[in-house]
Amino acid sequence: MVTLKDARNILAAAEKRAAEIGQPMNIAVVDAGGNLVAHERMDGAWIGSVDISINKAFTARAFNIATKDLAENSQPGQQFFGIHGSNHGRIMIFAGGIPLKKNGHVVGAVGVSGGSGEQDQTVAQAGAAAF
Amino acid sequence: MVTLKDARNILAAAEKRAAEIGQPMNIAVVDAGGNLVAHERMDGAWIGSVDISINKAFTARAFNIATKDLAENSQPGQQFFGIHGSNHGRIMIFAGGIPLKKNGHVVGAVGVSGGSGEQDQTVAQAGAAAF
Amino acid sequence: MVTLKDARNILAAAEKRAAEIGQPMNIAVVDAGGNLVAHERMDGAWIGSVDISINKAFTARAFNIATKDLAENSQPGQQFFGIHGSNHGRIMIFAGGIPLKKNGHVVGAVGVSGGSGEQDQTVAQAGAAAF
Amino acid sequence: MVTLKDARNILAAAEKRAAEIGQPMNIAVVDAGGNLVAHERMDGAWIGSVDISINKAFTARAFNIATKDLAENSQPGQQFFGIHGSNHGRIMIFAGGIPLKKNGHVVGAVGVSGGSGEQDQTVAQAGAAAF
Repeated sequence: MVTLKDARNILAAAEKRAAEIGQPMNIAVVDAGGNLVAHERMDGAWIGSVDISINKAFTARAFNIATKDLAENSQPGQQFFGIHGSNHGRIMIFAGGIPLKKNGHVVGAVGVSGGSGEQDQTVAQAGAAAF
Repeated sequence: MVTLKDARNILAAAEKRAAEIGQPMNIAVVDAGGNLVAHERMDGAWIGSVDISINKAFTARAFNIATKDLAENSQPGQQFFGIHGSNHGRIMIFAGGIPLKKNGHVVGAVGVSGGSGEQDQTVAQAGAAAF
Repeated sequence: MVTLKDARNILAAAEKRAAEIGQPMNIAVVDAGGNLVAHERMDGAWIGSVDISINKAFTARAFNIATKDLAENSQPGQQFFGIHGSNHGRIMIFAGGIPLKKNGHVVGAVGVSGGSGEQDQTVAQAGAAAF
Repeated sequence: MVTLKDARNILAAAEKRAAEIGQPMNIAVVDAGGNLVAHERMDGAWIGSVDISINKAFTARAFNIATKDLAENSQPGQQFFGIHGSNHGRIMIFAGGIPLKKNGHVVGAVGVSGGSGEQDQTVAQAGAAAF
């Protein structure tokens, strides 16, 4: 279970990392059912990244995989190419979504969007590490 | 302008009121562009209200009106009946969405969903009052 | 938690009741996250009811309420009128969706569509009783 | 015609194969109209694969082709590139969807999602073989 308190800790850790790298971000946390627990858009972060952060989190829980890893299998010619057309546009296939695990089970996910793939990934990792 | 700090103050005040009335809520804040700044789902709040809270906030900013008041004009036979079919399902026509004003101008909105119309309204009012 | 085995028991009980009243049905079961666990369309049941059965189950979990009861509050002039426009068309506001409870907590839901409101309701009740 | 009894046989055979390879799956069966007859999510299978399994089955019937074969024609530069943008997001262009034939005619399809492309394919083949 991912509580609102858990989600706030994740957001705080992610935002601390975003501040360190000087890139404002959207950060979202979903629970085991893929449903949103909390979202924050840091001042100055892209408005197009609201949807992306929420859906990176959804995707990471939907397939129990980091979106960065899903990306590799979703390129043209790869086994999951086209998966981004499923689930009514909610599947994000680039870095920034990471599953949250408890006792070896995925119980939620964090999603980050607002910078380069590398920036999104490091911020998401900082968030996930706080869980 | 609605900053993330503003949004957090609004969420905190709304959640305090939700706790007082004993009803867990989804609360969302949008900025002048109608875009999400922050959302929180209190533990135990309905998952179907994630979307509703965000879209009550969107609606209140989209038309610079409380959704409770829009509701009156959106009933069968009234001048805006059918408006809930516009904007790709983002228009909510029942209580819980309130515009946020600064110097007489609407600069954002708060949306609340998770209880009765009356409960959503009082929690949204508490949130808006903190702005 | 609603397992596949649980879902099959619910489907079997619901289909037994549907056979008794001589009306083929679509029956769906969702888990705590509102995600589909199992669906069956009995031979001869309406194809338009595939979506409805799944979304009645989703709705009953999304708001922890029987869709029959939500219906009363969602009529014109009532506090939730317009709620059927939320959640991307997934909210069903007529009889046939019932929450599944364990130890007083809603952990899923069953949704039935294929007949009159009364028929859908009795079949859903038979399904829920098997949980 | 694909009856509910047929669909259950297909699901059972597919799930037997999924158990053999140790990968929980979502499995769906559609009829000649492309409409869902039955779906099951095995315990522990990905929630993002509910939609994909149903739509792999839809796609396989929609074009009377295995989605694995459609994939080859849907890569960048190939004749059907972009087809996954049609049909409101219901076209899946990777392995796991297989048409069901009777007397040389396609009368339905099975769709499987929950593992690698190879795993989805072998489970779908086991399901189709039971028809």
